[in-house]
Amino acid sequence: MNSHKGTPPVKRLLLNCDMGESFGSWRMGLDAEVMPYIDCANIACGYHAGDPGTMRRTVALALEHGVTIGAHPAYPDLVGFGRRSMACSSEEIRDLLHYQIGALEGICKVLGGRVAYVKPHGALYNDMMADPLKLRAVLEAVAAYDASLPLMLMATADDSAARALGEAVGVPLWFEAFADRAYTASGHLVSRRQPGAVHHDPAQVVEQAMRLARGQALVADDGSAVQLDASTLCVHGDNDSSVAAVRQIRQALDAWVQP
Amino acid sequence: MNSHKGTPPVKRLLLNCDMGESFGSWRMGLDAEVMPYIDCANIACGYHAGDPGTMRRTVALALEHGVTIGAHPAYPDLVGFGRRSMACSSEEIRDLLHYQIGALEGICKVLGGRVAYVKPHGALYNDMMADPLKLRAVLEAVAAYDASLPLMLMATADDSAARALGEAVGVPLWFEAFADRAYTASGHLVSRRQPGAVHHDPAQVVEQAMRLARGQALVADDGSAVQLDASTLCVHGDNDSSVAAVRQIRQALDAWVQP
Amino acid sequence: MNSHKGTPPVKRLLLNCDMGESFGSWRMGLDAEVMPYIDCANIACGYHAGDPGTMRRTVALALEHGVTIGAHPAYPDLVGFGRRSMACSSEEIRDLLHYQIGALEGICKVLGGRVAYVKPHGALYNDMMADPLKLRAVLEAVAAYDASLPLMLMATADDSAARALGEAVGVPLWFEAFADRAYTASGHLVSRRQPGAVHHDPAQVVEQAMRLARGQALVADDGSAVQLDASTLCVHGDNDSSVAAVRQIRQALDAWVQP
Amino acid sequence: MNSHKGTPPVKRLLLNCDMGESFGSWRMGLDAEVMPYIDCANIACGYHAGDPGTMRRTVALALEHGVTIGAHPAYPDLVGFGRRSMACSSEEIRDLLHYQIGALEGICKVLGGRVAYVKPHGALYNDMMADPLKLRAVLEAVAAYDASLPLMLMATADDSAARALGEAVGVPLWFEAFADRAYTASGHLVSRRQPGAVHHDPAQVVEQAMRLARGQALVADDGSAVQLDASTLCVHGDNDSSVAAVRQIRQALDAWVQP
Repeated sequence: MNSHKGTPPVKRLLLNCDMGESFGSWRMGLDAEVMPYIDCANIACGYHAGDPGTMRRTVALALEHGVTIGAHPAYPDLVGFGRRSMACSSEEIRDLLHYQIGALEGICKVLGGRVAYVKPHGALYNDMMADPLKLRAVLEAVAAYDASLPLMLMATADDSAARALGEAVGVPLWFEAFADRAYTASGHLVSRRQPGAVHHDPAQVVEQAMRLARGQALVADDGSAVQLDASTLCVHGDNDSSVAAVRQIRQALDAWVQP
Repeated sequence: MNSHKGTPPVKRLLLNCDMGESFGSWRMGLDAEVMPYIDCANIACGYHAGDPGTMRRTVALALEHGVTIGAHPAYPDLVGFGRRSMACSSEEIRDLLHYQIGALEGICKVLGGRVAYVKPHGALYNDMMADPLKLRAVLEAVAAYDASLPLMLMATADDSAARALGEAVGVPLWFEAFADRAYTASGHLVSRRQPGAVHHDPAQVVEQAMRLARGQALVADDGSAVQLDASTLCVHGDNDSSVAAVRQIRQALDAWVQP
Repeated sequence: MNSHKGTPPVKRLLLNCDMGESFGSWRMGLDAEVMPYIDCANIACGYHAGDPGTMRRTVALALEHGVTIGAHPAYPDLVGFGRRSMACSSEEIRDLLHYQIGALEGICKVLGGRVAYVKPHGALYNDMMADPLKLRAVLEAVAAYDASLPLMLMATADDSAARALGEAVGVPLWFEAFADRAYTASGHLVSRRQPGAVHHDPAQVVEQAMRLARGQALVADDGSAVQLDASTLCVHGDNDSSVAAVRQIRQALDAWVQP
Repeated sequence: MNSHKGTPPVKRLLLNCDMGESFGSWRMGLDAEVMPYIDCANIACGYHAGDPGTMRRTVALALEHGVTIGAHPAYPDLVGFGRRSMACSSEEIRDLLHYQIGALEGICKVLGGRVAYVKPHGALYNDMMADPLKLRAVLEAVAAYDASLPLMLMATADDSAARALGEAVGVPLWFEAFADRAYTASGHLVSRRQPGAVHHDPAQVVEQAMRLARGQALVADDGSAVQLDASTLCVHGDNDSSVAAVRQIRQALDAWVQP
């Protein structure tokens, strides 16, 4: 367990990262390299990635580093990596969430861990952000499983509708932001098809992470200020440079929170 | 909840039945018809049959009838219905058991139920009975998940090896017998390819069930007596006649145990 | 081979039916009962239903009855039976069509048959009817495989856009209609959620089939006349009553076309 | 198309390599790097690896380099990469071969290629080599599909049984050997669990390839001479060093065959 896992400061920006996205013989992600620097691991549950063995190894790695475990459930679409929207009913969404959260919980239980939050993956995440009926289906599924589990979702400039729904259903919300992505004035991500959508300069990424940690507004793509109220930052462990960025963010956060 | 679900007598033969073996749009088994008469439902967990919606409906039906819920995990082989042996390692068996038990537990939890025992399905069950290394892998997987969960397995004339292994690993064993199958002198099932392997006469089926309930020996296919020490009887809900047989066994058992 | 499979009249309404929708141990559809009465079998290719063994048995049955074989490809969604729309790209649609058509062709080849047309299944069919980009993707995929293969799609009051697209891509179109469904004035099916959407009176079903065969207009749900230009009728082999309806339609068509 | 793809010499050792083993978002194998140096690409068909898009890209790459395309069918086991033996019946093996060969053929057809041989993958390959009933099932499946397609299988010191079976069924056989593996006196591969099972010295690999190309005996692990009659050499494109070895083998073969 790393030093940064100690007593949290008053305001603390948690680093979350998608993990356990290998499948069978196929490797994906530098899980072992990035795990030491993050706070929360969103672990794939077998529907878009992950298999029982991969899940076990990923849970063990998270526990070894004192990292909080979240379920990362998805539409049933291995070949599409859960990135293709599927017209699932609210009932289907509820059932597939319970199946996947339970499966990960079964593996956690054996290793002495537990599922501590839920973050839908890919197209399910996007659909939940775009369609209040789907967000409600996800929230109600989480509440039915364990209403003390937070749902992780995307921070925007105006989160009032999501907050109202979370309160109505009784599920805590963890809003996440991105340090390596440009934002629009409404606090949505600039589409990857636009130039400048992704920040490649490590200094800029760390700077944006620190602004989010300090609760400062970001500069949107139209030059206006956009204020996000995020409690967690989504980071990536895909390759060496993204792992390096996570390490730098971790160091900057630790330097700031422990005067 | 039916009358037979009341206080159990000193010696009680539980009826267990494979349930929840529909998949998506495909129906299998007369679950609603047979559930009122059984004690234990072996519920498919998605690897050979069952999907999250089917699992939820089956768990709800079991809870409605006060039926004990068991996980019925299998090799990952939907198209082969888990009936084809797969060369899985002990580690793979452990992981796929935890995944499937956990997934069913997740769905149970939402409905106020719990997984109370484990019965492997099909080829995994057969492999476990034929290969002590596989039986050990299954037992250790169950113990790691929850050592208070019994493992359901097949009663034979000499269960000493299995009992020793169960004791060593610390997992209770529930031995099951069959009322509609002929036995060999060693207490194994006569192969279905042999004439007389399956009893079709309902009276004979009920008679064999009652002999097992009373702890009496059966007559093996070579005429010798074979003594099985079974605490549960495996029944079937595939079709109308098998459901009728279960009802008759239930009635005979209830008449006997409630003087 | 039945008498109706002889020389076709000038105008002939072919009966097509979804077939081979069993999967592994799960049975669906009365294929053997309905095959003698139909002209065209839409055979599932493994993505929403069907497995290699089921496909082989279905192809053999079709060949035995002189029934034309069509590929019935779908989105990759066994648990949803291909009924849930998936956000597949045109490229993904093309590739999954070629894979499925080829797989069925492989099985046909061994038995001396061939794939003679393509009819997308479920959500892929609906998406193709609703979205010209998806229709183009399907047409181009069929053309790339074999431009002499017709695509089966839904007849409406105004098929001009589909016909233009088919001509541009160079793929023949077979428009299908339904004898057991009510139509709107625009020649679309009345939603199943509306009362009267499905005809349950066999006489009414046969009457509608004969009107379509004779090229006569139907009466839409608003009382107006709706003219459909269909060369094939979609019938169902789900259960005894639908098979009985197919037999009656077959007899009425045969009585009419063979004076 | 490379120079080595010209007129073959009297005796020519073809290089075959497993290709197209990516799946969805997961990458495996340096296909683009190794394709220029090989003669035959064993392309995964979706059961252990490969998906329609991966298959299309791999077929296109093979055609671009003038490489002969072989189907590389497997047991249905994505998570186990087709490496776990499954108790499939001869009928099941036949059907799954036809499905997979056909699917690859469908994709070839669109790109102007064709399936020219069959090489079973992983556990299906091993089972076929170990069990004459399984070898017969595979041979009969290939013969039923197209008896002119060769089956690729492993050369041993005594191939007489396989040759007799191939002749009886009427399917040509392509025997393959390995340049990077040690052999036993009976011409079987030394188990990877034994020290020295795999040659890591590039010079030794090239030397063994050239001995096989020249029809010279190898030195078995017990020091005896073992004569293999191989028409093709199985090479690997997993990583940079295996690609480098293929390039060296290619160069040595080309230098030798084109005096």
